[in-house]
Amino acid sequence: MTDSRLSKLSSTLRTSGVDALALNAGPSLTYLTGLHFHLSERPVVVIFTVEQAPVIVLPELEMLKVNGLPYEIKAFPYGENPVEWDGVFRKAILSLRLDGKRIGVEPSAMRLLEFRNIKAGAPEADFPDASVVVSSLRVRKDAEEIAAMRKAVKAAQDALEAMIPLIKIGMMEKELAAELVVQLLRHGSQSELPFAPIISSGPNSANPHATPSERSLRLGDLLVVDWGAAVDGYISDLTRTFAVGEVEAEYRKIHAIVLEANTAGRAAGKPGAPCAAVDKAAREVIERSGYGVFFTHRTGHGIGMEAHEELYMRGDNQQPLEPGMAYTVEPGIYLPGRNGVRIEDNMVVSETGAECLSDMPRELRVVG
Amino acid sequence: MTDSRLSKLSSTLRTSGVDALALNAGPSLTYLTGLHFHLSERPVVVIFTVEQAPVIVLPELEMLKVNGLPYEIKAFPYGENPVEWDGVFRKAILSLRLDGKRIGVEPSAMRLLEFRNIKAGAPEADFPDASVVVSSLRVRKDAEEIAAMRKAVKAAQDALEAMIPLIKIGMMEKELAAELVVQLLRHGSQSELPFAPIISSGPNSANPHATPSERSLRLGDLLVVDWGAAVDGYISDLTRTFAVGEVEAEYRKIHAIVLEANTAGRAAGKPGAPCAAVDKAAREVIERSGYGVFFTHRTGHGIGMEAHEELYMRGDNQQPLEPGMAYTVEPGIYLPGRNGVRIEDNMVVSETGAECLSDMPRELRVVG
Repeated sequence: MTDSRLSKLSSTLRTSGVDALALNAGPSLTYLTGLHFHLSERPVVVIFTVEQAPVIVLPELEMLKVNGLPYEIKAFPYGENPVEWDGVFRKAILSLRLDGKRIGVEPSAMRLLEFRNIKAGAPEADFPDASVVVSSLRVRKDAEEIAAMRKAVKAAQDALEAMIPLIKIGMMEKELAAELVVQLLRHGSQSELPFAPIISSGPNSANPHATPSERSLRLGDLLVVDWGAAVDGYISDLTRTFAVGEVEAEYRKIHAIVLEANTAGRAAGKPGAPCAAVDKAAREVIERSGYGVFFTHRTGHGIGMEAHEELYMRGDNQQPLEPGMAYTVEPGIYLPGRNGVRIEDNMVVSETGAECLSDMPRELRVVG
Repeated sequence: MTDSRLSKLSSTLRTSGVDALALNAGPSLTYLTGLHFHLSERPVVVIFTVEQAPVIVLPELEMLKVNGLPYEIKAFPYGENPVEWDGVFRKAILSLRLDGKRIGVEPSAMRLLEFRNIKAGAPEADFPDASVVVSSLRVRKDAEEIAAMRKAVKAAQDALEAMIPLIKIGMMEKELAAELVVQLLRHGSQSELPFAPIISSGPNSANPHATPSERSLRLGDLLVVDWGAAVDGYISDLTRTFAVGEVEAEYRKIHAIVLEANTAGRAAGKPGAPCAAVDKAAREVIERSGYGVFFTHRTGHGIGMEAHEELYMRGDNQQPLEPGMAYTVEPGIYLPGRNGVRIEDNMVVSETGAECLSDMPRELRVVG
């Protein structure tokens, strides 16, 4: 698998206008090399070129990971003292004769830590944004990747179903979040979750990016659960909104509108349709209902190895969908100071439309 | 608390030779502002200066977090379309009149994503490494921070004690890791753990940075558990090594040596002692035993909000310890292709020595 990805990278590099691609520890490096490194204060960088074997700069104590790989890679290990590091980077970059060349980087992943070490080894190089080189590969998932995402959706759904009977009025958002994480692990998620679950209730649910707090569930709250699992390195990212007992009529109404928007957004994906079409389909439902101003974010984002990947469902994004692309559809209505609703599903583009990987009931269920 | 940290920052900035400090989403930003943001494809940056109120650039949908803060902050929100972002950054930086000035950054946290947006707003500025400005504040923990670390140690120790009776020969490292995470949450850890536990057995235990694998525990293995909890935003980071049934005499021997090195390392910390003294105390025990070449990493690192913070227990580090500094002592012996041992504790420098926060038994316990 890694072999075919490396050869695809090689042909993409040929046509991309960069001479090399430098990646630091993170999902793109893992995708291309099969190697896992934690992002830490010790920089790990792999540099790929068209013609030469990739080069890796890494701490000596990580060398075991690169021994016995099924492809050629040239390792430049460094010791514990940071003053040695730029010298080792310089040797690595010299070995590839990259100074003065165009070395592509991923700005949303690479830190100044890695960048400055690379630049010290190639002071005359340019470092253009080459995110698209890897994202153009990563964005189209193969059968194995989609199978892993299905497992991640199943683990997440099973976990939340196991948690629902435990939800009681008076419980803190934080308690519910911890319980949900326990259930995610029990139901097969890796322990490194794609993100910490969002459990937000009452006025907190009107904040799309709330952090679980010490607020206790009350009768009449909406309860937003935004959660996901990771299986075999691939993730799910779902949201369901619940009613804690009887809720205001307007809350039931906005839930119904968001559900209709979610349904329209899920139906809009197909090969050739622009990302904007998915956003438009969902947004129009909410705008028509008069709540447009309370839908304050895009309709979705790409998913795969990360909870947010390239592929953004925004009204201005004309990028056409292609088979294998995976993304979320997650419209919401947030009434500031009151309550909010979001319903999120995970899609993958098929040959003729878009398949929804998640099938947990979306209706406003009563809990507590 | 945030107020006193901001005023300490202000006086540190005055003497640091930079005109401003720019931080992206991460622990330093949280430490100084009390605000939590996830690192995502949407940049969040706070810029601190000596004289002016801090400025924050953030997505519109995060604005709720900055309303009603107990200190003054000037917010520059941006919309969903990335083409607007550098304009908003430019306005923010212009408002502080920072072009041509020295804007300090943290290279191990800041990504090119944030950096290039800041630089677009201040093309003539310098961006020196100002990690020390924040780390010099963060490195000395106050009573509240130490109390949180104590809780994080207790949660971790309780969790592992709860897991030990569940360890059976034939279980996979991955299963044990998932079980340990469940126990960490049950025993009070936040769901965002400081790091995914390392559970490594047999030959895997000879890799200090192993990832839990599908390898099953066998009789005669050493079993390394490197794990931690997070409570109130502060972490613990511990390691214990177990014997799966009867193990080779040499493994018992290296365990005894590492325990002696750990004890010596723990005893070496006190105000005024250099970090190197802690490394030296532990390393000398292992070198004297003839296993020096198999102790392949530094003796420890700072801990606090992160599992690896500034303060490195390396033989070349003459930085003197001060009351409130917190760090790990974690010597190890790794016999490649065979088995490994590591024993790690969490220390905090007191007025007269260094207190060990962790007290879980360190002897070679038999499990399975």
